[in-house]
Parts: sequence; structure tokens; C-alpha cells
Amino acid sequence: MESTVAGMHEDRLLLGPGPSEPYPEAMEALARPVLGHLDPEYLAVIREIREQLQQVFRTGNELTLPVSGTGSSGMEACLASLLEVGDTIIVGVNGYFGERLCEVARRGGAEVVRVEAPWGTPIDPADLVAAQQANPQAAVLAVVAAETSTGVRNDVAPIGPALAQTDTLLLVDAVTALGGTQLEVDAWQIDASYSASQKCLGAPPGLAPVTLGPRAVARMKARKTPVRSFYLDLGLLHEYFLASPPTYHHTASSTLAYSLHAGLGRLLEEGVEQVWARHDRIGRLLQSALPELGFGLIAPESHRLPQLTATTLPNGLDEGSLRKRLLAEYGIEVGGGLGDFAGRAWRIGLMGHAATERSVVTLLGAVRELLA
Amino acid sequence: MESTVAGMHEDRLLLGPGPSEPYPEAMEALARPVLGHLDPEYLAVIREIREQLQQVFRTGNELTLPVSGTGSSGMEACLASLLEVGDTIIVGVNGYFGERLCEVARRGGAEVVRVEAPWGTPIDPADLVAAQQANPQAAVLAVVAAETSTGVRNDVAPIGPALAQTDTLLLVDAVTALGGTQLEVDAWQIDASYSASQKCLGAPPGLAPVTLGPRAVARMKARKTPVRSFYLDLGLLHEYFLASPPTYHHTASSTLAYSLHAGLGRLLEEGVEQVWARHDRIGRLLQSALPELGFGLIAPESHRLPQLTATTLPNGLDEGSLRKRLLAEYGIEVGGGLGDFAGRAWRIGLMGHAATERSVVTLLGAVRELLA
Repeated sequence: MESTVAGMHEDRLLLGPGPSEPYPEAMEALARPVLGHLDPEYLAVIREIREQLQQVFRTGNELTLPVSGTGSSGMEACLASLLEVGDTIIVGVNGYFGERLCEVARRGGAEVVRVEAPWGTPIDPADLVAAQQANPQAAVLAVVAAETSTGVRNDVAPIGPALAQTDTLLLVDAVTALGGTQLEVDAWQIDASYSASQKCLGAPPGLAPVTLGPRAVARMKARKTPVRSFYLDLGLLHEYFLASPPTYHHTASSTLAYSLHAGLGRLLEEGVEQVWARHDRIGRLLQSALPELGFGLIAPESHRLPQLTATTLPNGLDEGSLRKRLLAEYGIEVGGGLGDFAGRAWRIGLMGHAATERSVVTLLGAVRELLA
Repeated sequence: MESTVAGMHEDRLLLGPGPSEPYPEAMEALARPVLGHLDPEYLAVIREIREQLQQVFRTGNELTLPVSGTGSSGMEACLASLLEVGDTIIVGVNGYFGERLCEVARRGGAEVVRVEAPWGTPIDPADLVAAQQANPQAAVLAVVAAETSTGVRNDVAPIGPALAQTDTLLLVDAVTALGGTQLEVDAWQIDASYSASQKCLGAPPGLAPVTLGPRAVARMKARKTPVRSFYLDLGLLHEYFLASPPTYHHTASSTLAYSLHAGLGRLLEEGVEQVWARHDRIGRLLQSALPELGFGLIAPESHRLPQLTATTLPNGLDEGSLRKRLLAEYGIEVGGGLGDFAGRAWRIGLMGHAATERSVVTLLGAVRELLA
């Protein structure tokens, strides 16, 4: 068969909403020989990944593992494992991924209570706590820590203490947050959280780190009905990855595990707090330069993520054609706006290995050329 | 963090039930720069993979794509997308993966009609057709073409024509069959089928090729309720991968796509029928040698798969300890028995790049040493 891809590697600088540039160590690890999914060496890698993830999630949770899918599979694994048909879930919605939480929960048969804020603004945690008081039967309260669609940081820290004495679990979407900005699973009393390998963790896509605390594990064990998904049943995945002997569940990929392991190793060598500081410094560097070029910053400064900047374009410019030229002429990927910002914004990620001054300088240089 | 995996690559010959040895081209492709999941180059790769998979599945089905998960995710994607709560499914059960089809369908809310044969024997297709006649309301009839747990081939060819004038769709598990033994999606009137990247296709695990024919697509479009899974909704995946412009669904992995593309490219260069012939020849070579060493062949000769041999051990030998020695002393992985054969059988895969005379000679040499 005639192949268009066999001969030529595309040259890319990934500054979109993810995947980000993987660390070189994560790419190198892909070349390791493939191991069987029950190989003792593979299961040792999974156990090491658990220890690494515990450090990055800032938790001692025993049930901490990578789901064999992308970040969306981590979201669905948590919702499917923690909710039963007819359960109520409260969801903070101020962007695309809050909407997706509602959609996934609704498909699973849950009653969804929405707590909204306009796209581009943060959710008031007091509104979430009030919604829980109005719906004390709610099984789960879910919120996105870092809204990839708007660049807004939602305040998560105050919610956990308010839920701790209730029967409502706190589920936090940390897809873009983990390894980029402060997230404290134990200190903030988060019951469950999920992320993705390809954003601030600096590995290629394909794995979704998940952590469940004791209250979430107890909830899962007390289910009256089986999890509707076999593939994403976190109880079965726990038995597979971390029990001894392991119970076969699916053919997990040592290739992706090695790569995530290497990305996490690089992150931990730098240090979790140092990585947060780097993302903060680099993100602010971009955000201070964009207005000079006529770009607008969507998120308010108090809740503006450093690792993901949603930005409106200088007056009159068509985001799509400029974005396509950036990719075609300079090999730089940024994301287009989603939802309320479709057609009039870019989303610029400076995550993981791409969170460097060089990325900012390269991007700004190319944008200046395009605007000239 | 102290790492046990950073320094040393394990040396393995993967002759278990999968993952198999990937083709060198598939490993090499992992090193390609990561592309964004909406990059035009990435979507071009996905379209090429569709063409490749159409050749391997022997189908013109437009909805042919790789699901972002392992073979089990392909199974669940098909069941979740084709069944609604309360629907009836007829499942052929003569091994572990027939059981899994029942389990996944049941969790999704379907009524399951089992058509059984003992583990290690094939299912009579007439029994499946009779079950459909007794349950004409059945939405789906599912059967495993190549039972990875027993090495048994089930006769699929006669079923499709018997269902063509009914409202029951034929779903075929081709996880171990695809690229190993004859499978004819169009000629056999198969409505839906799924497989996995890491067996006879010769790529690392992580992707599940799926194909849906016109009757299955129409069924999906006529659903009264949304697919219970968002991540595995084949309608949404179709809009994402193959519509123009694509609709964002999840952050699919260009790394795994490139690798599958390379594995399929190698397979197609050899030729689909030539690959079947190679698997046949190599499997028979092993199967003719095993009885001389005192091993028993579980599947009857008429329905014995070449790519996956389930074999009982010479009298009195503990399969687990011998299998662990094979791995530790010779770096050769074979699988243990599942279900009815747990503790007393091996499962030996000769799939994809491992389907070579060298694999057979290496394995038999090591086994002779262990038995000596």
C-alpha cells in the first residue's frame, strides 16, 4: 500500500492543550522491549508508578494506578465506579470538561445537579458546598481543577473539608492540573482524582492516572450493582495491577507504562514543587507578553492557569487560518477555542517538557512573523 | 526515587497469549515525534490505518477504526454501542472470552442467552443458529472466532448467512484471529468485529481495531437511548476519527497509531493470505513436536488454532513452576491455563513477528533443557 507516513517525520512543537512535548526520557523508554501484562517485571514497574503517582498526587492512597486509556477513560472509570444508576452527582460546570462530566454521568444513569459559572470565570466553591447542603443525598461532587477549555483554575481546596462529614465524595478532574499547579489529594481531602499522561506529566498519551482514597474505596465496595463497565471497573483494575498474585483483567501496555514511568521520574527528579514553580514562571512569561501583541487573556488573573492560556486574538483576525499557518509554516501546534470560545480564541499549553522559556520565545517569534 | 527499572532492559521472547513480539518496524515507529490528536497528519495516519484494517478484516466497512484501549475495550465498545438495556444477546461460550462477553453484556443491562460447549471443544454453529430461532428478538449474537483460553477455533462462516434475514446482528471476537487465521468480515456476513494490536498484528498493546458493517451502523443510529459509555461510543469515535472536520472526542495517541500502522504495513507487505499460511505452518510445527515431549494438545485437530496452542504438561509436572523457570532462566514467556485449565496447562502463542521457526526451535530447546 502506498503510504504517506512511512517516509517523513513531521516536525512539531506541541504547545496546544495536550499532548505536550514529552520528556526525551519518556520517548526513549518507548523503545524498551515489550513485556507481558503479567510479567513480574511489568508488575514491578506498575508498583513503582504507583509510588511516583502518590508523590505527584500528594497522597498515600493505596489504590493509585494508571488506567489503560486516555484522560477521558480516567474520568469515566471514576464516575462508573463511584456512581450507581439513580445516584445524584453535583457537577461544577464552567467549561467543556465540566460539561463532559455531566454527559458521562448522565449516560451512566445518574441524576446531575449542575452548579454553573460562565465560561472563562471560576466556580465559587461556596456554591458547590451550598448545592451539597441542598442535595445531601448526592453521592459525588465533581469539579475540574484546571479547565483546559478556558484556562481557568477552580478553587478546590475549600471543598473537601466541607464534605468530610457528609456522605458526598469529592471527585477532582486533574487532567491538566497534575504536575502543573498545586494539587493536594490528601491535604485537601479529595476522595478521588484522575489525570492523563500527556499533559504536565510529560509522557505520550494513552494512560490515565487515577487515585481513590479510603472513602471512595469503601463506596465502591458497598455497591449494590456491578460497575456498568468491565473495562473501567477500578475494583477489577486494582485486583489486576496491585494484588498478589494479580488477577488477569486486560493486556496492559508495558510500552506506555515504561514511558509514563520515565516521565514521572524526570518530574520527580526536578521536584514536584519545583515543577509547579517552573510552570508558573513560564506561563506568566507568556501571559505578560501576549497583550503587547493584541491578544486578550480570558481567565481573570486571580484564577489564571499558567500551564494553559486561553487567549482571544487581535481584532478581526480569524483564529483558524492563523492557527493553521502556525502549524504549516512553523510546525507549532496550539489549540482552537472550544464551546463559548470556538472560532475566536486559542488555547496555548506550556506543559511538562514544553514549559520552557525557549517555547515561549519560539511561539512569540512565529506569531510576530504571522502578524507582520 | 530509587528505580529498579531505569537501568536494565529485560530480555524476553514473547510466546504467550499476547502481547506477541512486535515487528521491528512497529517498535521503530514508536520513536516518531508525538502529534496532536487533531493534527491533519495524525488524522491522515488514522485514515491509512482504516484502509489497512479494511484489507486485514477483508471488508469495505467505512466505520473501521482503532479504539484507544486494549482488545477488551474493543469488546466493550461493540457491546455498549450495539445493545440497549433489556436487549437480548446470544453468546457462544466455550472458554474465558465467551464468558467475558456474557459478563460485559450483563453489566450493560442485557439479557444473556448462553450457548455452551465444554472448554477445549468448538461450538456447533447450528446450536447458535437454533438459539437465534428460539430467540428471534435477540439484538446480537456474539461468538469468539479464536478462543485464546483454549486454542479452539469456532466455526464462524456458517452463522452470518443464517442471520442475514433476521434482526440479529453477528458480532465476532477476532482478538486472536485477526491476521492469524482466515477471517472474512464481508464474505461471512459479519456485522461487527473487534481485535487487538498486540497479537497477530504485531504491534504493542494499546489499540483495539473495530469494524462495523451497515446493519450495525443502522442499529447504532436507531438507538432509543445513548450509549452508556462516552469513551467507548463508536458513533462518537466515528465522528472524531473519520468525519471532516473531526469532532474532538479524546486525546488519541499518535505514538500507538504510528506503531499499529507500521505493524499492519509489514503484514500487508507479506500479504494477508501469506501471513495466514505462515501462522499455519509454524503452529503445526510446534504442535507436531509437543506430543514427543509428553505434552497434550487440548483442542481437537479439526478446530486447533495454529497461532495459539493450549497444551497440558507431561505427567506430574507443575505448570506454574516450570513456566516461571522458562521465564527466569531463558527469558521466554508462555501463558498459564485459564478457567478449566488453570494450573494444568500452558498457552503458547506464535503470533505476528513471533510466528517463526526460530521461535519454535528456541522454545523446544529450552523446554527440553528444563525437562532433562
